Amino acid sequence: MTMKVAFVGLGIMGEAMAKNVVKKGYSLSVYNRSGEKAKRLEEKGAAVAGTPKDAAKAADVVILMLTGPEAVGEVLEGPEGLSEGLEPGKTLINMSTVPPSYAKALSKRLEPLGVAVIDAPVSGSRKPAEEGTLVILAGGPEDKVKEMEPLLLTMGKKIIYCGQAGQGASMKMATNLLLGIMAAGLCEAVNLGQKCGLSTSTMLETMLSGPMGCALFEFKKPMLISGAYSAQFPLKHMEKDLKFIIQTADEAGAAVPGGHTAFQLYRQALGHGLADMDFAAVKKVFEMMSDPFPLV
Amino acid sequence: MTMKVAFVGLGIMGEAMAKNVVKKGYSLSVYNRSGEKAKRLEEKGAAVAGTPKDAAKAADVVILMLTGPEAVGEVLEGPEGLSEGLEPGKTLINMSTVPPSYAKALSKRLEPLGVAVIDAPVSGSRKPAEEGTLVILAGGPEDKVKEMEPLLLTMGKKIIYCGQAGQGASMKMATNLLLGIMAAGLCEAVNLGQKCGLSTSTMLETMLSGPMGCALFEFKKPMLISGAYSAQFPLKHMEKDLKFIIQTADEAGAAVPGGHTAFQLYRQALGHGLADMDFAAVKKVFEMMSDPFPLV
Amino acid sequence: MTMKVAFVGLGIMGEAMAKNVVKKGYSLSVYNRSGEKAKRLEEKGAAVAGTPKDAAKAADVVILMLTGPEAVGEVLEGPEGLSEGLEPGKTLINMSTVPPSYAKALSKRLEPLGVAVIDAPVSGSRKPAEEGTLVILAGGPEDKVKEMEPLLLTMGKKIIYCGQAGQGASMKMATNLLLGIMAAGLCEAVNLGQKCGLSTSTMLETMLSGPMGCALFEFKKPMLISGAYSAQFPLKHMEKDLKFIIQTADEAGAAVPGGHTAFQLYRQALGHGLADMDFAAVKKVFEMMSDPFPLV
Amino acid sequence: MTMKVAFVGLGIMGEAMAKNVVKKGYSLSVYNRSGEKAKRLEEKGAAVAGTPKDAAKAADVVILMLTGPEAVGEVLEGPEGLSEGLEPGKTLINMSTVPPSYAKALSKRLEPLGVAVIDAPVSGSRKPAEEGTLVILAGGPEDKVKEMEPLLLTMGKKIIYCGQAGQGASMKMATNLLLGIMAAGLCEAVNLGQKCGLSTSTMLETMLSGPMGCALFEFKKPMLISGAYSAQFPLKHMEKDLKFIIQTADEAGAAVPGGHTAFQLYRQALGHGLADMDFAAVKKVFEMMSDPFPLV
Repeated sequence: MTMKVAFVGLGIMGEAMAKNVVKKGYSLSVYNRSGEKAKRLEEKGAAVAGTPKDAAKAADVVILMLTGPEAVGEVLEGPEGLSEGLEPGKTLINMSTVPPSYAKALSKRLEPLGVAVIDAPVSGSRKPAEEGTLVILAGGPEDKVKEMEPLLLTMGKKIIYCGQAGQGASMKMATNLLLGIMAAGLCEAVNLGQKCGLSTSTMLETMLSGPMGCALFEFKKPMLISGAYSAQFPLKHMEKDLKFIIQTADEAGAAVPGGHTAFQLYRQALGHGLADMDFAAVKKVFEMMSDPFPLV
Repeated sequence: MTMKVAFVGLGIMGEAMAKNVVKKGYSLSVYNRSGEKAKRLEEKGAAVAGTPKDAAKAADVVILMLTGPEAVGEVLEGPEGLSEGLEPGKTLINMSTVPPSYAKALSKRLEPLGVAVIDAPVSGSRKPAEEGTLVILAGGPEDKVKEMEPLLLTMGKKIIYCGQAGQGASMKMATNLLLGIMAAGLCEAVNLGQKCGLSTSTMLETMLSGPMGCALFEFKKPMLISGAYSAQFPLKHMEKDLKFIIQTADEAGAAVPGGHTAFQLYRQALGHGLADMDFAAVKKVFEMMSDPFPLV
Repeated sequence: MTMKVAFVGLGIMGEAMAKNVVKKGYSLSVYNRSGEKAKRLEEKGAAVAGTPKDAAKAADVVILMLTGPEAVGEVLEGPEGLSEGLEPGKTLINMSTVPPSYAKALSKRLEPLGVAVIDAPVSGSRKPAEEGTLVILAGGPEDKVKEMEPLLLTMGKKIIYCGQAGQGASMKMATNLLLGIMAAGLCEAVNLGQKCGLSTSTMLETMLSGPMGCALFEFKKPMLISGAYSAQFPLKHMEKDLKFIIQTADEAGAAVPGGHTAFQLYRQALGHGLADMDFAAVKKVFEMMSDPFPLV
Repeated sequence: MTMKVAFVGLGIMGEAMAKNVVKKGYSLSVYNRSGEKAKRLEEKGAAVAGTPKDAAKAADVVILMLTGPEAVGEVLEGPEGLSEGLEPGKTLINMSTVPPSYAKALSKRLEPLGVAVIDAPVSGSRKPAEEGTLVILAGGPEDKVKEMEPLLLTMGKKIIYCGQAGQGASMKMATNLLLGIMAAGLCEAVNLGQKCGLSTSTMLETMLSGPMGCALFEFKKPMLISGAYSAQFPLKHMEKDLKFIIQTADEAGAAVPGGHTAFQLYRQALGHGLADMDFAAVKKVFEMMSDPFPLV
């Protein structure tokens, strides 16, 4: 535990994850663009770095939890960026969601400098982040991932080793494709039933008690019954993920017709101002696309 | 249990269901177009009727489990059809999957003749049919459904009352829409991951251990790993159901973009000769639509 | 010209077509469900039949121009229907748009009775119908189609012989699929340009002056510029045609992804109350699906 | 004509366009990654520059005709790149197809250096490029576009001024969206008709003689009849353009369902090895997605 860790990116997810790292006794310094969140970590015992470079200088391992490739690029290569502080022998763990091609390029960029790179996006949203029960999808050198296990297990309950650099990101793409399709599918099915005059709660009871019953649908059930979608996983992130997924599918040569259909629905939701609601708010798009009055 | 029951339609599902009815002690007569299957029921203690009309004549309650509206129409209105034997006071329980508009029309056709009509399609495939653990989605007069509960519970473990005539069918449409989308979504996600170079079993482990984990995906897991799709629920039935779903959505004024996407995939599977495989064989369509060689 | 003709169905298209038949000197009797329109034909010199049966009795050739298969079925088989008056040696020309399978079934139904059946749907809308410049897509026995040419040429400028029974309908499906896709495509492209800040008229000038320039887009240009969509070809008919096209594609084993996409757009337009506008009003659906405020 | 011009990018289009510039008497220097093509221009009277920087140094106006944003970025910012030779007062005309956001960024990047930037993608493929009859879609400062008219008219027959920086690119996106949808739509319609048993040439005659008849379909007619798709406009370029279109639609907040459908078809074509055929070869994808044997 003499390992010194830096954590960059203190959004909803990042803040919760960083708290778990410090809580388990790691020496932690944090960096965030807006200082306020860093202060909250300081209260928990973390040091606050003034720049990404300083954060990297002071640490053996740097963890990133940012909104996407642009943010990662900026923090890495911008003025006073991480790259200036990442010396040989250090490790970068990128937990931000990025396309596999970006994850691979990141690894290619830093490995010649003697920096080990792990891509380790997470499955799970706010609550498991707070409880330290995320599932972590790791790609990169297997021995390095093993070495980082104790650190990663402060944030997650399970680490799934997916393969070499970029494969953690690939796994995230595959699982979030399914996630986006399933949530939109649930909303589409419930909307169809509603237009047919069925009771929403009877429908959800039926769906949950059969072979399709799963925790995801349990989470969304009260949202669909109440029509209130306070964000567990903000819709704008699902929209962004599906964009990465379509790009990844294009690069990998895989057909993703369900992904294209889902992307268009979530994208339309953005246009209707639902960006910060839970991604199950895509239900409202089905309502808007359907007849004002059922025909039956 | 002095109630006399007739069962028409002894396909994979019907035969298993009829066996459970007779096993629980009901007086049963059966009718099937091809006689062989009727003989197997005869051995279990059922009487064999020569025509649908005769079956209806001899019974208080007639159960239908046929392939769709055309088959129901033929059995009902064809020569020596049910309608000639359905006298006032009798009950018709249609467990075949039909569009809600057809279920409603059936009720409208027979109620003036004093025949009570229940639509009661089932959720579940071969195995729960054999074990008598189907979920039955019932529409029609609530008291009549209550009255039929003991009979229905010989075939299923649970009866969900969905509302008036046609609402059982509506519930079936909503749940099978989700089913069709989820299975295709799983195949699409797994195919994407495979093209990215991920291990199929690691992927399924990841998906099953998270919030999307469900019995449906457990059933499909060995199929996706082995590439062998022996039918639990034949693909051609899912394709037909999605056709009914698109029709129902059109009539109800509901948008079903995921349904259209899924229908096209299962329909394409038919054209490639996968009709009698399990509906998870739609995976092969994703393979055919993807690049022969991964680009990464 | 001693041939006696009956015309059944005096909608926007039918009335205009029947007028051309009588104007060219044919002895004509007409039937329409609502009598008023028949009266307008009477003023032009046509006799008015009280029932479809009477219309058929009095004629050598019966022309149908109805809204679809249901209407054709009712006029044919309903009480006092055509089938009671169609004696051997007579000819039925169905110019209504129906799926090819229906056109074939119609032929199979009547040919054993000695009635020749031609399916002859038209390409073109109100204006060419009035001017007698429709393009007629004919299927059925080739010699019979030849024999009917003079009669058909009172309504159209060109007859395209497409093959045996049902092939006229097949041609209509193929051409209207393209029509539905092109009109929706034009609206989608113009909407994209508008969201990017381009001038609508500059866009249409560009599109019309290049290889995509065609009469269809010329017709729609003033609609897209003004935003007023008075019906040349009502949107509800395009929606219905695309439903037939999806059914036909299913029966023929053809993939129609563009057809599914277009159907959903026109269907959504119906739900928003655009049924009786021109089918180019599908533009409004693109507007509703797009962001309220352009992001650029 | 004392204006000195540099032309960078001598692909199929660029070579033909550069030849027209030199033929009309402009003093031209050219640069191309592979030297061979530059030699062919040298024979026509052009000077050959060793680097993009040298090309820019020697010229008043630099024209780019490259494969996309990556190529433009490399030529501009790479070692010995254009940016090192583009002095104040010079003009850059980018005729490569790029997304509007890229065109705008290019303008923002260079205008502070005193370089005027025009985006001027073209409508038309190999033949009009050779004949100097392209349609040029120009965005940028209106007076600068006017000033460049004589130069642009050596390559095109018509210049359409679309608005400020990026609007030429926007117009290209809108028109190519329509182009991609129309060509795929034609293939889909013809494939449907073929599966129904119609004659391909009768179908094309029907489509071309009606309101949808256009030069585009005339060009594709012999391809669809022969099944041989030698490239006028290579399929891989259409696939790339649709990718830009989807990105542009996302940025502009416009729904492009037809674009998503079309993209998937052309992308699937790439996977089947059709990249270098004409984009009408997407027809083969419809064939592969359809039943091996027609059902009718």
